[in-house]
Amino acid sequence: MLSSFFVEDHVKQALMEDIGFGDVTTESIVGENEVFAASLVSRCEGIICGLEVFKTVFKVLSDKVEVKLCATDGDRIQKGDLLATLKGPGKYLLLGERVALNYIQRMSGIATETNKYQNAIGELPCKIVDTRKTTPGFRAFEKYSVKVGGGALHRFNLSDCAMIKDNHIQVAGSVTNAVNMVKANLSHAHKIELECDTIEQIKEALPLGVDIIMLDNMSLEQMKEAVELINHRAIVEASGNVHLETVRKIAECGVDVISSSAIVAKAPTLDIALDM
Amino acid sequence: MLSSFFVEDHVKQALMEDIGFGDVTTESIVGENEVFAASLVSRCEGIICGLEVFKTVFKVLSDKVEVKLCATDGDRIQKGDLLATLKGPGKYLLLGERVALNYIQRMSGIATETNKYQNAIGELPCKIVDTRKTTPGFRAFEKYSVKVGGGALHRFNLSDCAMIKDNHIQVAGSVTNAVNMVKANLSHAHKIELECDTIEQIKEALPLGVDIIMLDNMSLEQMKEAVELINHRAIVEASGNVHLETVRKIAECGVDVISSSAIVAKAPTLDIALDM
Amino acid sequence: MLSSFFVEDHVKQALMEDIGFGDVTTESIVGENEVFAASLVSRCEGIICGLEVFKTVFKVLSDKVEVKLCATDGDRIQKGDLLATLKGPGKYLLLGERVALNYIQRMSGIATETNKYQNAIGELPCKIVDTRKTTPGFRAFEKYSVKVGGGALHRFNLSDCAMIKDNHIQVAGSVTNAVNMVKANLSHAHKIELECDTIEQIKEALPLGVDIIMLDNMSLEQMKEAVELINHRAIVEASGNVHLETVRKIAECGVDVISSSAIVAKAPTLDIALDM
Amino acid sequence: MLSSFFVEDHVKQALMEDIGFGDVTTESIVGENEVFAASLVSRCEGIICGLEVFKTVFKVLSDKVEVKLCATDGDRIQKGDLLATLKGPGKYLLLGERVALNYIQRMSGIATETNKYQNAIGELPCKIVDTRKTTPGFRAFEKYSVKVGGGALHRFNLSDCAMIKDNHIQVAGSVTNAVNMVKANLSHAHKIELECDTIEQIKEALPLGVDIIMLDNMSLEQMKEAVELINHRAIVEASGNVHLETVRKIAECGVDVISSSAIVAKAPTLDIALDM
Amino acid sequence: MLSSFFVEDHVKQALMEDIGFGDVTTESIVGENEVFAASLVSRCEGIICGLEVFKTVFKVLSDKVEVKLCATDGDRIQKGDLLATLKGPGKYLLLGERVALNYIQRMSGIATETNKYQNAIGELPCKIVDTRKTTPGFRAFEKYSVKVGGGALHRFNLSDCAMIKDNHIQVAGSVTNAVNMVKANLSHAHKIELECDTIEQIKEALPLGVDIIMLDNMSLEQMKEAVELINHRAIVEASGNVHLETVRKIAECGVDVISSSAIVAKAPTLDIALDM
Amino acid sequence: MLSSFFVEDHVKQALMEDIGFGDVTTESIVGENEVFAASLVSRCEGIICGLEVFKTVFKVLSDKVEVKLCATDGDRIQKGDLLATLKGPGKYLLLGERVALNYIQRMSGIATETNKYQNAIGELPCKIVDTRKTTPGFRAFEKYSVKVGGGALHRFNLSDCAMIKDNHIQVAGSVTNAVNMVKANLSHAHKIELECDTIEQIKEALPLGVDIIMLDNMSLEQMKEAVELINHRAIVEASGNVHLETVRKIAECGVDVISSSAIVAKAPTLDIALDM
Repeated sequence: MLSSFFVEDHVKQALMEDIGFGDVTTESIVGENEVFAASLVSRCEGIICGLEVFKTVFKVLSDKVEVKLCATDGDRIQKGDLLATLKGPGKYLLLGERVALNYIQRMSGIATETNKYQNAIGELPCKIVDTRKTTPGFRAFEKYSVKVGGGALHRFNLSDCAMIKDNHIQVAGSVTNAVNMVKANLSHAHKIELECDTIEQIKEALPLGVDIIMLDNMSLEQMKEAVELINHRAIVEASGNVHLETVRKIAECGVDVISSSAIVAKAPTLDIALDM
Repeated sequence: MLSSFFVEDHVKQALMEDIGFGDVTTESIVGENEVFAASLVSRCEGIICGLEVFKTVFKVLSDKVEVKLCATDGDRIQKGDLLATLKGPGKYLLLGERVALNYIQRMSGIATETNKYQNAIGELPCKIVDTRKTTPGFRAFEKYSVKVGGGALHRFNLSDCAMIKDNHIQVAGSVTNAVNMVKANLSHAHKIELECDTIEQIKEALPLGVDIIMLDNMSLEQMKEAVELINHRAIVEASGNVHLETVRKIAECGVDVISSSAIVAKAPTLDIALDM
Repeated sequence: MLSSFFVEDHVKQALMEDIGFGDVTTESIVGENEVFAASLVSRCEGIICGLEVFKTVFKVLSDKVEVKLCATDGDRIQKGDLLATLKGPGKYLLLGERVALNYIQRMSGIATETNKYQNAIGELPCKIVDTRKTTPGFRAFEKYSVKVGGGALHRFNLSDCAMIKDNHIQVAGSVTNAVNMVKANLSHAHKIELECDTIEQIKEALPLGVDIIMLDNMSLEQMKEAVELINHRAIVEASGNVHLETVRKIAECGVDVISSSAIVAKAPTLDIALDM
Repeated sequence: MLSSFFVEDHVKQALMEDIGFGDVTTESIVGENEVFAASLVSRCEGIICGLEVFKTVFKVLSDKVEVKLCATDGDRIQKGDLLATLKGPGKYLLLGERVALNYIQRMSGIATETNKYQNAIGELPCKIVDTRKTTPGFRAFEKYSVKVGGGALHRFNLSDCAMIKDNHIQVAGSVTNAVNMVKANLSHAHKIELECDTIEQIKEALPLGVDIIMLDNMSLEQMKEAVELINHRAIVEASGNVHLETVRKIAECGVDVISSSAIVAKAPTLDIALDM
Repeated sequence: MLSSFFVEDHVKQALMEDIGFGDVTTESIVGENEVFAASLVSRCEGIICGLEVFKTVFKVLSDKVEVKLCATDGDRIQKGDLLATLKGPGKYLLLGERVALNYIQRMSGIATETNKYQNAIGELPCKIVDTRKTTPGFRAFEKYSVKVGGGALHRFNLSDCAMIKDNHIQVAGSVTNAVNMVKANLSHAHKIELECDTIEQIKEALPLGVDIIMLDNMSLEQMKEAVELINHRAIVEASGNVHLETVRKIAECGVDVISSSAIVAKAPTLDIALDM
Repeated sequence: MLSSFFVEDHVKQALMEDIGFGDVTTESIVGENEVFAASLVSRCEGIICGLEVFKTVFKVLSDKVEVKLCATDGDRIQKGDLLATLKGPGKYLLLGERVALNYIQRMSGIATETNKYQNAIGELPCKIVDTRKTTPGFRAFEKYSVKVGGGALHRFNLSDCAMIKDNHIQVAGSVTNAVNMVKANLSHAHKIELECDTIEQIKEALPLGVDIIMLDNMSLEQMKEAVELINHRAIVEASGNVHLETVRKIAECGVDVISSSAIVAKAPTLDIALDM
């Protein structure tokens, strides 16, 4: 999902941002010939994510740094686990350390948070999915992390799935109008999702043949009623008030997917360190 | 701190990421002539940050959208506060909504988190400062948000301040060697910070004339001892184990600044909505 | 579908490509104060497309050039029709002429070609759609032109719809395996299309619930059989041997969409001129 | 003519355009270890062009794909000819297939079309040359293809040769004025071309010493008269109404070069396939 | 010669380079509402160049800064001359000052140096021209400055004029071979220049019909002999040992152009100041 | 200080600028298989700088060119010294020659000029330092060259050190106000420099605790008085009227650093040649 050439270009920008006019400390002390060995180690439990990106940071800096990965994205790691070993000129290890950790800590944080939600759902046939509430310029990494954490993905951007919201319905005049206008314009390769606030809207929508019905901020009772009403004629997505405490109960309503911005936007970074 | 031309270019990238090949929903329903009015409203208490960036998103999309700001970055806002009003073709309001909110929610989240830490420090002559643990490609926005939240900033990147860490000391052979090597190489316009784990290191460092001494993961007792020992001969920075619960106690040790990655890396987004 | 800021950046690149170190002819002869009037005129019949892009070329060059459009993208134009009038420093009209025409001639060529195919299909409930066979770096403009010409669009790129081809089936071991592997991995917001060479593959696919079945290079008889067999349980797409002469007959088989690279890859440019 | 670093950067943009957030189909089915072999095969007769660019697409994606070329740009190929063999992880072959073909099909199409024109001219001392009517952002590839097809090139952009057109003459007041104004300003390293509609303009131009005289939309008779009149005192270029049927007759008038946008703008893509 | 959109993009890069994470001094002291007036004043005699670029720096920073130019590129200025007046928020004047001066001081330095050489040549029909020895990334500005200073330009880059040097002759086997190989390959729109070290080479070259003969590091006597020998059958360019002291004598040999890297590479910046 | 990935990207831009649509001369004559050997040789005395950048130019063009460096940045070289040997396809040597030399000649010119100033200062404990008067887009290379030449660096840009100038003081109302406003806003990681025109300003500044006091255009007597007055309570920087003739005398006043734009802005290029 993350092409290596795309990651390399992103990493170059991040390194420029962090290096500026050079590492004035390391340049004064560490010569090209000082070889360091280092270990990437977990400081807590979680889901590791971003190992190839981590490796790319050092690849961009120098072909003299050897990085061996000891884990794979998606692995559950424990405090103290060895995730990778590095060997090469200390100059480059110190130069890339912060940026490499910035990627892997954020990505693992999201994977870990996602995993908690999916675990809370447990054996139920329901997936936690992300939203478009991402950090500007970092979406590909965040979506990849959700996937690695065991979640599924919602649309990537505004072009790959139609989503009819209340504003659209208002302009169109009715749910029926809105759906028909989108159908007339949309590629046959794309789906239509309809955001519904009420059971009435769902009733209006069902005969129109939308692909996904999103239950927006409904109570558990309403959601159960909706699921029964829809009866597999559309994919059912729940949205709103999704927390680690509520996610299982929402899943128990029988919805197919639960979308939540929290797994990305509120995920704390995971504590991973580079010991030299 | 955020130049408008820099913000515009960042916003264009973010819009490309979110728009892809076009907003397939809105294009089907909302014409160029449907004029919308919208309000940017706070859904919770916090510090608002990113209003000009929010405005820029719509400016990039069309010169037909009028955005009037009703608050200023740094203002404390309450649930329900009106932050801005927008008027213009609905097409552009819907096109820019998500990206605009993605900026302002993240930036306000960081400003709010920073503000909590600075408030916890209260009247003490001590500042909470950020670190280089930022989201790749988003540092300028994150540092700006820390500033707006009442915090102060640490160095921007590896080039604007020397920071001697344990690895540097190890290569140099001693604290004294490390400091002298950096002094011989550094611009007179830049400061030297030394990371110290022990009181002994501080004793070795003091006669060398470093600008900043960072107390790395010291206990409160050690920090008090260090502050007394240093006695204003260097700026004292505390680092490690900085939480909302511990920050006041650390400040009471007499340190000048407390650096923490948490105010950026673990700040949840702030709930702000665009009501149309 | 084409955001103005995206078009502006594309136009800047195209102008750099065409201007190089400056227009050595015009700079020698035409001063800043020589005001020209010019008319964009059609030299043949077709569907006009790219008027806003045409306008953007001159906007990027100077705010002193006034461009008034006399037609709208999608209009059927005749030889001699006035499409736009321009007024401003001759220097900029001459500087932008070639690039502006390069966009509009190509875009109108594609719109016109697409329109011929859609017209050939006539009143049948079937749409001509494009493919991913586009000019590198120019896809957004080409897809927009297909839309303007009355066609519909296929997926934008590899991420917005799954398309299972023979190579995938071979690796997966069977159609069933391939479809199930994609279903397990795909976003609920995206569709699955299956490329079928034989009626047997379709039979295997139908119970699996794919969204789109593509009939790859089938004879008219096979296509009719397939349409009957599928019986609205999936969208039916025809592909292969699509020419202006065959497209109606394919549509008469009852397929929902006919995909063709020819409407983009083999469309000649449309003859449009700028008379000064 | 196409530097490898330039091609690599162009290819990266094209891959981003085609990959978006990842190949959702292949990622579901084809692992990193599934090795594919593939053959690039011609499906019709023509001139092959773009083999190195084709190769670069896979090089950018992964260093694990081995591409062996079995032909050289400019070779005449027949239906069924093997052009290249590929071996490597199927994941990357499928990921790069479309973009790699998009380059080589377009480039070969132009080379083939150009070749037809040059062949029609046959043994006459006259070259078919291209124009500035190219696809925005793709000119370097198109010009290279014309060259490979046996044609010659006109100026690259507005800066490498002066071309005086009717608008310039009008502003300058006369052919004489226009030529003198350009001569006074132009680099000694650049040529002057004059577009002439009439024999009178040529007579006025000849004593002024222009390097190239372009006969714009003249009849065959006028062209013969012009060639005789010019009598090798300038290079003679014919332009306008150049088709495969007319090009030989134009060449027989004795002109040195015949410029035509058709060899690029109206060239259909060449049918080349990647069989896996 | 310098398109405004090209200059704007160059200026943005230069501003990013000079601003980094913000102007920490001005942000502390000067508010948005402090309006400054400033004057761009010459501190010495010379040729002014880069006024529009200077203006663009402030335009990029803010639309609130008004810049009025009181001179035109190419004007001879004296110490104390007022070149432009500025009015606007002091914040932006201070932010842009250094970058704006960096452009205009370098550009004016080159224009002034060029002008000295052209003046030394005086009334003779000979022009001083530049070379490809330019600052990487700054060539367009440097060439423009040579033009403004009264010089003429040599080729822009490797593609707009063929220049056969000793290495080419060596590979080709002889001057004749080299010229013929280039002629067979070159566009009719481009010239051929031949670098000659000896009179013999010139004799060999003359019947071949090259456009320009460059006399490389010849003595004054050799140059006179060469000019006579060539006798207007090619443009004659002198190169090597071109100084302000020698340039007139070289021109007196009858050469048409004298190329020199010194007018760019060794030109000191011109002293121009912004008084607030 | 110059990261290899940053240099590579800069070099690509420079090559694009110099290559345009291809090297029309070399492409006609030199095949892929003509192997050349070449030597980089000094034509005069000086300090060599930019060898790795020189090497990078050829690395970007082809992996078939082998460059062996025979010197190290900072070495004092004499006329005739061999600096590097190159071997590889002549095509790439000719293609990269000019750009590679453009970097190394400029960089070595700056290093050499800087070295003259530092040598003039001799054994005195004082360093020559650069300023922000650099070529737009080339600062990193220029600053690196100053360092290599034995000089020290001033701030990199507006963000890494506060510098209070007369305009700031005027807005703030007094030196005291200005310093205090900056102190309240500045990072603890950054220094404050104050530009002083008079001894009175220094007296006002000393108790405020600024890090650096810049003596702006003072006479030698004033500078001596200032140094005595400051008495090591701040770093003392001299600025203004710094020439090779005056720099020693200024250093003898006891200042710590002398800043000069001349070492960059007025440094002529160093004569280095590539002999094939």
